[in-house]
Amino acid sequence: MPKRKICVVVGSRANYSSIKAVMRAVQAHPDLELQLVAGASALLDRYGAVVDIMERDGFKAAARIFMLVEGETPVTMAKSTGLGLIELPTVFEALKPDVVLTVGDRFETMATTLAAAYMNIPLAHTMGGEVSGNIDENIRHAITKFANIHFPASEDARQRIIKLGERPEIVHNVGCPRMDIVAEILQQDPEVDHYLGGEGVGVSIRSREPFVLVSQHPVTGEYGSGEAQISATLAAVRETGLPAVVLWPNSDAGSEDVSRGIRKYRERNPDAPFRYVKNLPPEVYIPLMARTSCLVGNSSSAIREGAFIGTPAVNVGSRQTDRERGRNVIDSGYEKDEILHAVRDRISHGRFAFEPIYGDGTAGPKVADLLATETIGTNKVITY
Amino acid sequence: MPKRKICVVVGSRANYSSIKAVMRAVQAHPDLELQLVAGASALLDRYGAVVDIMERDGFKAAARIFMLVEGETPVTMAKSTGLGLIELPTVFEALKPDVVLTVGDRFETMATTLAAAYMNIPLAHTMGGEVSGNIDENIRHAITKFANIHFPASEDARQRIIKLGERPEIVHNVGCPRMDIVAEILQQDPEVDHYLGGEGVGVSIRSREPFVLVSQHPVTGEYGSGEAQISATLAAVRETGLPAVVLWPNSDAGSEDVSRGIRKYRERNPDAPFRYVKNLPPEVYIPLMARTSCLVGNSSSAIREGAFIGTPAVNVGSRQTDRERGRNVIDSGYEKDEILHAVRDRISHGRFAFEPIYGDGTAGPKVADLLATETIGTNKVITY
Amino acid sequence: MPKRKICVVVGSRANYSSIKAVMRAVQAHPDLELQLVAGASALLDRYGAVVDIMERDGFKAAARIFMLVEGETPVTMAKSTGLGLIELPTVFEALKPDVVLTVGDRFETMATTLAAAYMNIPLAHTMGGEVSGNIDENIRHAITKFANIHFPASEDARQRIIKLGERPEIVHNVGCPRMDIVAEILQQDPEVDHYLGGEGVGVSIRSREPFVLVSQHPVTGEYGSGEAQISATLAAVRETGLPAVVLWPNSDAGSEDVSRGIRKYRERNPDAPFRYVKNLPPEVYIPLMARTSCLVGNSSSAIREGAFIGTPAVNVGSRQTDRERGRNVIDSGYEKDEILHAVRDRISHGRFAFEPIYGDGTAGPKVADLLATETIGTNKVITY
Amino acid sequence: MPKRKICVVVGSRANYSSIKAVMRAVQAHPDLELQLVAGASALLDRYGAVVDIMERDGFKAAARIFMLVEGETPVTMAKSTGLGLIELPTVFEALKPDVVLTVGDRFETMATTLAAAYMNIPLAHTMGGEVSGNIDENIRHAITKFANIHFPASEDARQRIIKLGERPEIVHNVGCPRMDIVAEILQQDPEVDHYLGGEGVGVSIRSREPFVLVSQHPVTGEYGSGEAQISATLAAVRETGLPAVVLWPNSDAGSEDVSRGIRKYRERNPDAPFRYVKNLPPEVYIPLMARTSCLVGNSSSAIREGAFIGTPAVNVGSRQTDRERGRNVIDSGYEKDEILHAVRDRISHGRFAFEPIYGDGTAGPKVADLLATETIGTNKVITY
Repeated sequence: MPKRKICVVVGSRANYSSIKAVMRAVQAHPDLELQLVAGASALLDRYGAVVDIMERDGFKAAARIFMLVEGETPVTMAKSTGLGLIELPTVFEALKPDVVLTVGDRFETMATTLAAAYMNIPLAHTMGGEVSGNIDENIRHAITKFANIHFPASEDARQRIIKLGERPEIVHNVGCPRMDIVAEILQQDPEVDHYLGGEGVGVSIRSREPFVLVSQHPVTGEYGSGEAQISATLAAVRETGLPAVVLWPNSDAGSEDVSRGIRKYRERNPDAPFRYVKNLPPEVYIPLMARTSCLVGNSSSAIREGAFIGTPAVNVGSRQTDRERGRNVIDSGYEKDEILHAVRDRISHGRFAFEPIYGDGTAGPKVADLLATETIGTNKVITY
Repeated sequence: MPKRKICVVVGSRANYSSIKAVMRAVQAHPDLELQLVAGASALLDRYGAVVDIMERDGFKAAARIFMLVEGETPVTMAKSTGLGLIELPTVFEALKPDVVLTVGDRFETMATTLAAAYMNIPLAHTMGGEVSGNIDENIRHAITKFANIHFPASEDARQRIIKLGERPEIVHNVGCPRMDIVAEILQQDPEVDHYLGGEGVGVSIRSREPFVLVSQHPVTGEYGSGEAQISATLAAVRETGLPAVVLWPNSDAGSEDVSRGIRKYRERNPDAPFRYVKNLPPEVYIPLMARTSCLVGNSSSAIREGAFIGTPAVNVGSRQTDRERGRNVIDSGYEKDEILHAVRDRISHGRFAFEPIYGDGTAGPKVADLLATETIGTNKVITY
Repeated sequence: MPKRKICVVVGSRANYSSIKAVMRAVQAHPDLELQLVAGASALLDRYGAVVDIMERDGFKAAARIFMLVEGETPVTMAKSTGLGLIELPTVFEALKPDVVLTVGDRFETMATTLAAAYMNIPLAHTMGGEVSGNIDENIRHAITKFANIHFPASEDARQRIIKLGERPEIVHNVGCPRMDIVAEILQQDPEVDHYLGGEGVGVSIRSREPFVLVSQHPVTGEYGSGEAQISATLAAVRETGLPAVVLWPNSDAGSEDVSRGIRKYRERNPDAPFRYVKNLPPEVYIPLMARTSCLVGNSSSAIREGAFIGTPAVNVGSRQTDRERGRNVIDSGYEKDEILHAVRDRISHGRFAFEPIYGDGTAGPKVADLLATETIGTNKVITY
Repeated sequence: MPKRKICVVVGSRANYSSIKAVMRAVQAHPDLELQLVAGASALLDRYGAVVDIMERDGFKAAARIFMLVEGETPVTMAKSTGLGLIELPTVFEALKPDVVLTVGDRFETMATTLAAAYMNIPLAHTMGGEVSGNIDENIRHAITKFANIHFPASEDARQRIIKLGERPEIVHNVGCPRMDIVAEILQQDPEVDHYLGGEGVGVSIRSREPFVLVSQHPVTGEYGSGEAQISATLAAVRETGLPAVVLWPNSDAGSEDVSRGIRKYRERNPDAPFRYVKNLPPEVYIPLMARTSCLVGNSSSAIREGAFIGTPAVNVGSRQTDRERGRNVIDSGYEKDEILHAVRDRISHGRFAFEPIYGDGTAGPKVADLLATETIGTNKVITY
């Protein structure tokens, strides 16, 4: 019997972190063959050339698709999806996958989804069913309406997918594949200070002493506010007196706003005890999450990996609204004083206990087994 | 107070029929301004140059977007959507609509939907919530997950949209806008035989004497079967002994298959009492529906307009599965004998009574009033 | 030493006829590897699925790119080139050719040319340097300004390329590769009447008895006149009293006009002794050229293959203006009477003697040898 | 008589500098109407939002087209041209210009050229006929083969266009439109130090005291070498001991390389007396050219504006090879010592006398007059 060909389209650093454990399990599975397509920001140097990292990790890209239209505005977000939708069918026709596996909810993910759906290729979807109160959520639920097998990361998400009219027997709560990687890294407990020292600019950080971690991204729907938002966060962190690792934002619409805010802050506060880094591989970021006094910003990692690791975290603003969360997270608005108050609260508590909301670190093998054994059709029926 | 700008993207003949009554009501409304974008097959001569018809009807196109990639395969269906998604943002940025109104469920409709959603422009959706058991249904429900105000055509559809997690207060059962046009034409009861005589090739048809009407399209997901399917239908119709009007298919993936089937049948059966016509304006098609002994094929008109008009109809195959229907419709498989049996049954019954399943012919004004008065935001929440 | 990879992009039936002999010679050459990309109308059923013919001929397509935007207008001609230019770089990056070989002057050929030139891949060009007095000529000369090695089909063309500022040592008069195929077919002298009988509609043709051959295409720059032009030609041919084989036009902008003209003529003159055929493979078309009493229209084959074969030919209108021609061709305007007069003149003469203006039937091996042995750089200098 | 509509597509800061004087003259001309399309890097914040500058200067954009594909590689350069070629036809069809005016030789300029040529819109071309020894030159000459009226900037360029087979009567040496702006600014002799102080980072510059000006861009065809090239230049400039204004590169393929070189130099040499600025409007840059001790790099401004102004200049490397130049320019290879030697030579000479090689500052009105009065057809003939 020929192996089932599973095609994964990876379009960003975040995509890769989310699906790496599945890719590994698919590649290792005797009945499956992995087909990797790299596109969008996964190809761009300025975001860390994820395609190179994947190749070093042993995943060879069968195709590379430059598809991001410059501008980082809502207009270009739509056009980038269009570019992907022009090229992915050509690639799918050449690769002839048995299943296309799409990850999460980024705008370019819609291109993967529509290409597979229109071409009648069975579509698998990880991390569906979650709520987050923004355009990403609409994208996520829309993908659910095209997917032929679902791999939500939590029980809450599974129930929501079923409520959306999907048949329960094609909805499998496997946990979040990112936890597989997290578990692995936590066990290794690697040194990271040397790495941090070689990357970015600013002060040196000793990660086994108290420090704050900042990761704040633009919020779709609040276009234009990114600069003010990050400025308030950085000002609050400064007042804790602790050193901090500050990450540059991802490539969503509005990231230029946030970047400008960080650049200006740095130029005006050259003596802030901050280190600014472009982005961190999980092998560095996860240990930082395990050691930081507090993670501040609006990264989903505070909520997901945070629950697994027990990271004290302040979630700023509306980007993660309604996402299921553990005791480690406290919310805050965009005001400096409110952020500062919340950060101090977290620092005083210290690390929290593990909560298995988003899985137990075995999602990858579970997904691979289901992809190898389930019947995955393309005809869908709504249950009501 | 400036008028609300309502942008409608019309991409096909069917689109136009479905939204014309709304366009007219929007254009007539004192608080609304209509912006028309013509694209996809609405621009193509071979499908009847819908854009010219619209301009004659008093609707001026603010932009024209050629976006269909030749091939009529699943691959080109996806690529065409991509092309639309590249150009529509440019148009929306120039027109700055207050609301984008999207119609139904055709593949290129996703381009309109995504462009508006990503650009944070409130999205209105007509004819959502219906079931049809194919990719169109998935597209329809996915659009629902992006829409900010819904105008379903039946109560059943309204309930389904609410089950999909939409807030009831933004879901308005207005009836199907096509019925507005149907009601108008039925009142006029125009002569059409002269028109039919000038279009297409084949025998002359007298529409006030018994005849069969055939309208059969390719079925997404049954790619490659179109030729055999139409051949069986035509053979069955031939055996009734009645003359027939045979329509060429629409421009979905697979239409070339169906067209080939019709071409071959015509060449091999030059003496069949059939008239082959490229497509008919509603002013001709609706009277034919009111007079035909039986409408055969898989057109949605059998079910929707059919219920309003009372047209005896045989629905062949899976294209309309699960669509809510009246007593006028009987289903059949793809076998010639089964089709013939069903057609004879309908012929013997004659015209059915009106059933208001898809509205009472006042959808256009209802939609316009709601677009003028409702608060339409872009932030969505799921109700569960 | 690794083989040089020669990538050919075939976008139409005409392209394939023009380059087939080269492809065969490249594939057979011990130091070369052929990479075939099929795109544009070469993928479309309605133009005869050239990609399938190529595969039957032993050429496997490494990639297939649907890139024609529907509409057949000047607008879509430009957009189609754009689509090609979006996808070809992805393909070239994957295939990593040593040389890209581009054929002739069709609009989509610019996409191949620009992709290779921008990506710094050496570009070879066949059939450059010819004059034809239309947009194709501008495209042809523009491609010359990007090409790094030139394979013109005649000495006249070679001299023109050198005048355009190209260094003489990179300009090689190899003859037209189509003559290689022509020579081969002429030797076989195959029966074709049975083939003609199975294709198209209309009367039966006996190709070894007198008949006329009609091949007329839309003229870029005379958009909208195609219908009137073909009507005059068909009326003139009718008056000769001979049976005729009438070919449908190619897929340039305006082909719909010419097709409409043919369709209407056929409907209004059902008794004309004509056979209408969609398109003919060279194995049928070349024997027809060798046997016809007269070839009428504006196909370049009258001039090129015509000189080699000695076909009596009437060249109608401006499409082939200034193309170097042999004694077999006589020119005519678009008026019926002028065409008729010219056709009668040719019929009375009969077949002409061979003239080697466009090569002696050995272009394929010559091009392959040069591709294998010449140094082909990407840095160009103009000679003045 | 209706005004002739002249459509200009501006795709970059350099484009705008080159055509501004013409745009002003067209807008002021009683028989002409200006239609402005802004696209490519002219829309991007990171390159200074040229579209905003144009609107402040009184030129309203009729359309805005985001068309740059992220990546800044040869692949994305080709794809960006493709994107432009998909959207420009839509815009041209809506604007219906009488003439499309295209500027120079940037890759995206080909999109403007092909869209106009395929759509049969007369094409005017400024700055054709020049030699520069790179892909830009091939693009420039290819555009010449499509243009219907030529406005070269020098007599040498005019002669070359004629040699390329263009009819002399459609080739008009009007001088370079950039000189119109330069002349105007030189007369104003404005203060600029305050502006420089507010832009970028680094030391303060006093432009009326000795300083060096550095403007170095990536070289197409030397992809990957940009970082080493700029490093050598900066090291050489450092050794002169003079302060320097260092400009970031433009957005061609490879600009990321040059940018990285500058970033690294700055980080490793925090005490270099350099000011790094993103880009400068002509009102600042031209006065700097008039006052600098030496302009170093590979900007065409050294040669063109330099001849008009008399700027002492060192031209590094192959980017400007063969461009006609005045006595103010000396050439150098990429080695630090060679650059240093050349810079010292220029510094010791001081400002040169005016040379009218690229016009006398009246190109704008000349072009406008010709556009208003000449017959501009679309049929081209080659003169040999």
